[in-house]
Amino acid sequence: MAPSTLPSPADFAGTLDDLRRRRPLVQCLTNIVVAPWTANVLLAAGASPAMVDNPHESGAFATIADAVLINLGTPYDDTAEAMRSAVAAAADSGTPWVLDPVAAGAAAWRTTLALDLLEGATPRILRGNASEILAIAGGAGGRGADAADTVESAADTARDLAQARQTVVAVSGAVDHLTDGERLLRLGNGDPLMTQVTGMGCALGALMAATSAVTDDGLLAAATATALLTVAADRALPHSRGPGSFAVAVLDELALVTPDDLADLTRVL
Amino acid sequence: MAPSTLPSPADFAGTLDDLRRRRPLVQCLTNIVVAPWTANVLLAAGASPAMVDNPHESGAFATIADAVLINLGTPYDDTAEAMRSAVAAAADSGTPWVLDPVAAGAAAWRTTLALDLLEGATPRILRGNASEILAIAGGAGGRGADAADTVESAADTARDLAQARQTVVAVSGAVDHLTDGERLLRLGNGDPLMTQVTGMGCALGALMAATSAVTDDGLLAAATATALLTVAADRALPHSRGPGSFAVAVLDELALVTPDDLADLTRVL
Amino acid sequence: MAPSTLPSPADFAGTLDDLRRRRPLVQCLTNIVVAPWTANVLLAAGASPAMVDNPHESGAFATIADAVLINLGTPYDDTAEAMRSAVAAAADSGTPWVLDPVAAGAAAWRTTLALDLLEGATPRILRGNASEILAIAGGAGGRGADAADTVESAADTARDLAQARQTVVAVSGAVDHLTDGERLLRLGNGDPLMTQVTGMGCALGALMAATSAVTDDGLLAAATATALLTVAADRALPHSRGPGSFAVAVLDELALVTPDDLADLTRVL
Repeated sequence: MAPSTLPSPADFAGTLDDLRRRRPLVQCLTNIVVAPWTANVLLAAGASPAMVDNPHESGAFATIADAVLINLGTPYDDTAEAMRSAVAAAADSGTPWVLDPVAAGAAAWRTTLALDLLEGATPRILRGNASEILAIAGGAGGRGADAADTVESAADTARDLAQARQTVVAVSGAVDHLTDGERLLRLGNGDPLMTQVTGMGCALGALMAATSAVTDDGLLAAATATALLTVAADRALPHSRGPGSFAVAVLDELALVTPDDLADLTRVL
Repeated sequence: MAPSTLPSPADFAGTLDDLRRRRPLVQCLTNIVVAPWTANVLLAAGASPAMVDNPHESGAFATIADAVLINLGTPYDDTAEAMRSAVAAAADSGTPWVLDPVAAGAAAWRTTLALDLLEGATPRILRGNASEILAIAGGAGGRGADAADTVESAADTARDLAQARQTVVAVSGAVDHLTDGERLLRLGNGDPLMTQVTGMGCALGALMAATSAVTDDGLLAAATATALLTVAADRALPHSRGPGSFAVAVLDELALVTPDDLADLTRVL
Repeated sequence: MAPSTLPSPADFAGTLDDLRRRRPLVQCLTNIVVAPWTANVLLAAGASPAMVDNPHESGAFATIADAVLINLGTPYDDTAEAMRSAVAAAADSGTPWVLDPVAAGAAAWRTTLALDLLEGATPRILRGNASEILAIAGGAGGRGADAADTVESAADTARDLAQARQTVVAVSGAVDHLTDGERLLRLGNGDPLMTQVTGMGCALGALMAATSAVTDDGLLAAATATALLTVAADRALPHSRGPGSFAVAVLDELALVTPDDLADLTRVL
């Protein structure tokens, strides 16, 4: 049963501290666009990434990993099969997993794959932009990784979806909406420059997998990851001339941000 | 029929302005080496990339995309099939597509694939280094992404190829030769440091797909993309200590370069 | 027969000079996480990378490449088949190849693949962290790219493995142990920040392939590559705020480090 109190920035700080101390092994089945970035984000934040994404190994590895990330950015037949194996093994062994249904709604085959994965098992967190979350809930549309819909338009859908799927739904945007169907957190850090770097949303999903390894409260895990990335982004801005130097500075800040920084700087709306 | 006047830097400026305003959706079927860089280049420049490169989805997505990039850097059976589907769908739906036959001539299977794609449909732009363009025209050789041949040695071949294929041929090098078979543009910006960063040529192909979405004149599209990347490279140099910081600064400058900058700084030879 | 004298930093300098002059063509069959980084590392160092990793082309390309890198980071059925073809062709044509068995021991299928490749042919260099080297020698364990075992614990195993396989074994860690079964080199440059950037070990394997193209002495090749990367890392530190800017600065320094710098700065323990 989900905790009934809302986690606070002080709780995010504690979860980040746990992450840094425990250095969870995060198995990533992700895409060719963000694989390097995702690994670097996890390393900078203090986790240990392992990209084991072939069908021969993904299931067995999911039983020893501390968390599993499933990201549908560029699925192929063999990696999709690997995802099915990893999710089944994660469910069997109690490994938390996070689903990031990139471009769901905009591309049909992966939308079906996402729904299939959700039918077979329950992720700790389902993360997407508004268009992707609407598509998973039964809507349609979107044009890839960019959200055509606003976070606000997906808020009610996210709550209903979280209740129906018994999971945490995280809708990323200018304001991040996080809900487990009962509780709702709205976080306000981050900058529009994040949309000019590929894989910021994917980084968020990866960090949610990492935090899921150190707390059973999915909403706390989602909020800590969101706070970490967006506070890092805020702090990266003064070191940025444009999207290139911004991405570099975000990696620096993911390593530099302390638990106290999260407690002090996270804006809960 | 192709326009008969040569586009000028003022025209490049107008096309960049259109790109920024319309933010075209560029479907990229590209390779594992440059996929992250390509997505970041397109985002920085003002386009919206979507890497839909599996055979289940690539054809349908090509009908909704504003342009399609086909880059043969690391083809596999499934992505090659996805490329065939995307090109066929692009041709049917009138979506402009750009072919970047990386390492054509140096590797046999992809050379055949490139020629097959060209037999079935006509790209808006065919972009490569001198060795790749010579290979597509019927020559041979090359050793991968590095050109063994000079741009000058491919100039006549490029013109004949453009006429025969009814397309624009862009030969990248110290001087960029762009021709639609009738008109010829030679652009002189850029720096040798570009050859020490992977995917500069691939970035050029991606930007050509983006500009192809906002103008029907393939020569203008090719020239605007070339001007944008090479002017950005020139402006990145003062911020660079070596190839690492140069690549970061190029991304920054792709976002910072204005249409007026293109009009002022592009060197037409 | 292996040379009987230990190579010195002056020898590393000479090998780096050869690398820069000859610009070897290094065919990389590597993984989706480090492919961009690997290409940029090789370009910065002065080599010419070519990622030809499909089974239709990998064998033929291995006969024209100056060296071949086999990295097992994210193997799939088709890239594994490409690796088998490339290794067989490299062995037939005398092209030196380097094996980097990423996550051997932690994942079963690739461990078998690594052993199969080693049964069929002898690499110039076998590079891994302590856990991977122990797994190849018949031990087990590890949790991916991070070494659970210390370099020291693998030292005897590395020597025996080098003798049994008639190859050079390079064990990467805080101290790098390099041995051909007779000679042993321990190098001490580098910084813990290297473990917070993905692909530092993979970069080392790629550089070893590049140096293998310019010297027949595998121990000298392994030591030159190790010295180059770790001296570059040392010099990158003052330009780094965290792992993001560190990775950028390492690429800069790979291009800036001179043969004289290697001679002066390499710490042989």
